[in-house]
Amino acid sequence: MGKPDRFELIAETARRRGFFWPSFEIYGGVGGFIDLGPLGSVMLRRIEEKWRDFFIRKHGFLEISTPVVMPAKVFEASGHLEHFKDPMVECLSCRRRFRADQLLKASASVETEGLGLEELDEQIRAKGVRCVECGGELSKPQYFRTMFSTTIGPYSDSVGFGRPEAAQGMFINFRRLHEVSRGKLPIGIAQIGTALRNEISPRQGPIRLREFTIMEFEFFFDPENSRCPNMKEVEDETLRIVSRELREKGVEEPVELTVGEALRRGYIVNEWLAYFMALSKSFLVELGVASEKQRFHEKLKGERAHYSAQTYDQEIFLDRWGWVEVSGHAYRADYDLTGHVEHSGVDLRVFVASDKPVERKVKVAAPNASVIGPLFKDNAERVTKIISGISPDLLEAAFRDKGYHEVEGYRILPEHVNFKLREVKETGRKFIPHVVEPSFGAERLLYVILEQAYSVREGRVVLRIPRDLAPVQAVVLPLVSKDGLPEKAIEIQRMLVKESLDVEYDDSGAIGRRYARADEAGTPVAITVDYQTLKDNTVTLRDRDSWKQVRVSISHLPQLLRNYLAKKISLDTQL
Amino acid sequence: MGKPDRFELIAETARRRGFFWPSFEIYGGVGGFIDLGPLGSVMLRRIEEKWRDFFIRKHGFLEISTPVVMPAKVFEASGHLEHFKDPMVECLSCRRRFRADQLLKASASVETEGLGLEELDEQIRAKGVRCVECGGELSKPQYFRTMFSTTIGPYSDSVGFGRPEAAQGMFINFRRLHEVSRGKLPIGIAQIGTALRNEISPRQGPIRLREFTIMEFEFFFDPENSRCPNMKEVEDETLRIVSRELREKGVEEPVELTVGEALRRGYIVNEWLAYFMALSKSFLVELGVASEKQRFHEKLKGERAHYSAQTYDQEIFLDRWGWVEVSGHAYRADYDLTGHVEHSGVDLRVFVASDKPVERKVKVAAPNASVIGPLFKDNAERVTKIISGISPDLLEAAFRDKGYHEVEGYRILPEHVNFKLREVKETGRKFIPHVVEPSFGAERLLYVILEQAYSVREGRVVLRIPRDLAPVQAVVLPLVSKDGLPEKAIEIQRMLVKESLDVEYDDSGAIGRRYARADEAGTPVAITVDYQTLKDNTVTLRDRDSWKQVRVSISHLPQLLRNYLAKKISLDTQL
Repeated sequence: MGKPDRFELIAETARRRGFFWPSFEIYGGVGGFIDLGPLGSVMLRRIEEKWRDFFIRKHGFLEISTPVVMPAKVFEASGHLEHFKDPMVECLSCRRRFRADQLLKASASVETEGLGLEELDEQIRAKGVRCVECGGELSKPQYFRTMFSTTIGPYSDSVGFGRPEAAQGMFINFRRLHEVSRGKLPIGIAQIGTALRNEISPRQGPIRLREFTIMEFEFFFDPENSRCPNMKEVEDETLRIVSRELREKGVEEPVELTVGEALRRGYIVNEWLAYFMALSKSFLVELGVASEKQRFHEKLKGERAHYSAQTYDQEIFLDRWGWVEVSGHAYRADYDLTGHVEHSGVDLRVFVASDKPVERKVKVAAPNASVIGPLFKDNAERVTKIISGISPDLLEAAFRDKGYHEVEGYRILPEHVNFKLREVKETGRKFIPHVVEPSFGAERLLYVILEQAYSVREGRVVLRIPRDLAPVQAVVLPLVSKDGLPEKAIEIQRMLVKESLDVEYDDSGAIGRRYARADEAGTPVAITVDYQTLKDNTVTLRDRDSWKQVRVSISHLPQLLRNYLAKKISLDTQL
Repeated sequence: MGKPDRFELIAETARRRGFFWPSFEIYGGVGGFIDLGPLGSVMLRRIEEKWRDFFIRKHGFLEISTPVVMPAKVFEASGHLEHFKDPMVECLSCRRRFRADQLLKASASVETEGLGLEELDEQIRAKGVRCVECGGELSKPQYFRTMFSTTIGPYSDSVGFGRPEAAQGMFINFRRLHEVSRGKLPIGIAQIGTALRNEISPRQGPIRLREFTIMEFEFFFDPENSRCPNMKEVEDETLRIVSRELREKGVEEPVELTVGEALRRGYIVNEWLAYFMALSKSFLVELGVASEKQRFHEKLKGERAHYSAQTYDQEIFLDRWGWVEVSGHAYRADYDLTGHVEHSGVDLRVFVASDKPVERKVKVAAPNASVIGPLFKDNAERVTKIISGISPDLLEAAFRDKGYHEVEGYRILPEHVNFKLREVKETGRKFIPHVVEPSFGAERLLYVILEQAYSVREGRVVLRIPRDLAPVQAVVLPLVSKDGLPEKAIEIQRMLVKESLDVEYDDSGAIGRRYARADEAGTPVAITVDYQTLKDNTVTLRDRDSWKQVRVSISHLPQLLRNYLAKKISLDTQL
């Protein structure tokens, strides 16, 4: 290890100024958890908002929020119970445990993605890899399930897991959301929330966390009609791509291609996948990562998650860790919905009208009036209505599962319902939609932005955070702490806070020191109140990046700041 | 059970329109979890934002974000390991488990708050309470710990819990946050995030959840200087109070008192507590709950959480469940910080300057140059700097705990440090700050708002959600689906979305049906595009609550909507 790298420098600034720091410090710390301080927590919210603007609002996607703790059944169906695991070795003398592939990669520079337990073991023996803590011999690798396990409620057999992705909450709700949106297809469903991954031995600060904020959406479409109508907007944009085909030839250098060309060559198998990849590139550019520091790296079969038919990782180059994934773009096809159909017995197909009518028998749940009437008395009508309105599949699944189905406090039992087959003429096609999924980790983006923004000018740190993401949007400074300047400055600060701007007040120390403090927090503009302010109600604005100052009227401040933060104007040229 | 109560009506609307529904439906459901649909998820964010405006931004409090999963040590120190539990009984024949106090209350109308296991058992026998499912005999009550338990990482002895409150993340970070804010006191630290409570048998929909969004802040102040300077703003406001004193006399009817009077009578022991209670009352009024449907109910000793010296629950009256807590106001005093000092060994006292100087010995951590130099070589300087900068208490705690302390990848061992005592002259007082804590559950508020907003007009549901909280802010409707009206309407909708307004487009069905659909979703305003629009670029606005219509120019729409949503204007009177 030589001089402090950028990670160390940023970690130090982040800790001191309140962006982030390791959690549970006073108890000696626990790896893989960070706290977001006052600056970090606001900045994370701004990242989320920008993501919403970029991907969700613009396309009219639906955002939902589902639980972090989920019953085991969901992950049985999704394949996570079987596949979500990492290889682990234990030191036979000190009993410390390590992630086998990472240890092998770090100790012997072996490329480990996709290796099985046997191959890892062979490599560990071949390269003579030993415990990094005590030098002891290592056990054979075993799989460790990297989901946090718990029990839900007071029965020990009711196993639950912390979700490792938000996706499953969207898949199991697909049917209801499709109904809520009155049968629309394609449809995008998004979620931002906590994800939990019980990593074996995370050691990469904010880059590999056991708990983090996932931002992802599932885009559901008809596989027989998978053209993206927005393709025109992006087809001439370039992406730096390391495709599977290239990697299999041993090439790890990206080729630069237009989106259109990448599709024509078959490097990207689906237009929607390509469209969202192109948006994601622009998104990272807006976050401060130049295109030449980005690439899209296709995963080989053994490297992909179990649910994915094609995966590109969007990667960016970081000082300490090299190429690091910032988003995953997976073509999940019908993998997840099919799994949930099989495990829940609920029909998750959608119907799309076509020209030729088809005759089919469909299941209906008919309320059994002779039982319901005497039993529910005054409420019989309501119960009848509930049963008629419910999906027969859902009802059957509940009966199979728990023996009853409870709605609005009424317990519906099998004897209240007759399942019948009714003949219908269908004029369309039923199918399971396909899915592409872009997925981002918000804390990792936060770190990426800080690393890109970190700069030193005249020996002082200036965080050039994109100004629409800066946590403190402006600071108001009285030139001196007397003669009514502080009172005037506080008045201006309060006025701006009322305008929903995040503006602070600082009167401690010399003015130069206060500018420096604002620069280090990434605050885009400092508003200085001086003696002239008292005369003509003007203040000076100082730009974080150019250090230039301009004089403006207080009455223009709110609108001016808003335009400036939205990057509609710059302080240098347009004032 | 008679006619459907308001909960049933709202649950039905909420499910159909996408506010909320029970989670994991296709797998038969799991009690105590709800999903927020597209409308509910946006509305929850608006509730969070309003809470921030009301309590956090206005006071310059710091918001942070800390993990949901926390190591057991934290909850050992906070008292939750010992105290966070509920009494449970098991049916001896069907083996179902129930919360003993709730069962007793529901089956025999016994007031159970504060009863111990023995007393509960006596009451169950005395009242002949049996299993509600099968009529079987019940076991003796036992305590069940209502935190979700897990293990962190690959070692089974590394126990962790899902946090039942966000508070502990703020207490264990108090020292760092106090530093980040450069020694300010009083100081407010806030957090919004997931809380987990492993309820035994939750049966109250969105009112009692195993997973929910907590919004709380800890307000730290000097107990010797506990005056609230904002008292003037609220002292003449009235609160409806059921104090401990009244309850002990058997009075459960609230008395209406001004905040000032409640303090003078000693009903509320602390000015800050009273101030935040007054704000919370206004907050609920803004959410649509009239003051006469609110009360503040003081908890008796046996009913209070283990950490609290005084607790008032803010309660509101709901149709199905009667008085229900919407926020808790706890005077936690120095309970939590003292616990963390004792368990971590880290000094969490603050220093406040005073007039008389005091001599004291303080511990310092001096880097051991003779060991560090040869060992760390080029990095010795950095390691020396790290050791000098670190708190000696924190370092000692880490050594005691893990045998080392790791910073920036350097492992610091006891032999690298000499702990010394240095004599200093102190000119102030060190003490543990006291804390008051207001705490809200966001999903419960969401439900409360919907129940207050629910109304029926001409046989149709109208959700009169306060317009600053309505999920869809406006909908654009072409009068008919031809002659270019849809295109014009879509253009207007897109323009408004670009202005960061949440605006939808709807062209399906007759115009009356579309108005009805918007009313049922609580959309405050419908914008209709008709033939006149094509001539003069005007549209009609229709108000959800008055059903009145006014004609306005498209160019005024963004500002007009913003003012209307912020309740600065009404459509009836001011257009």
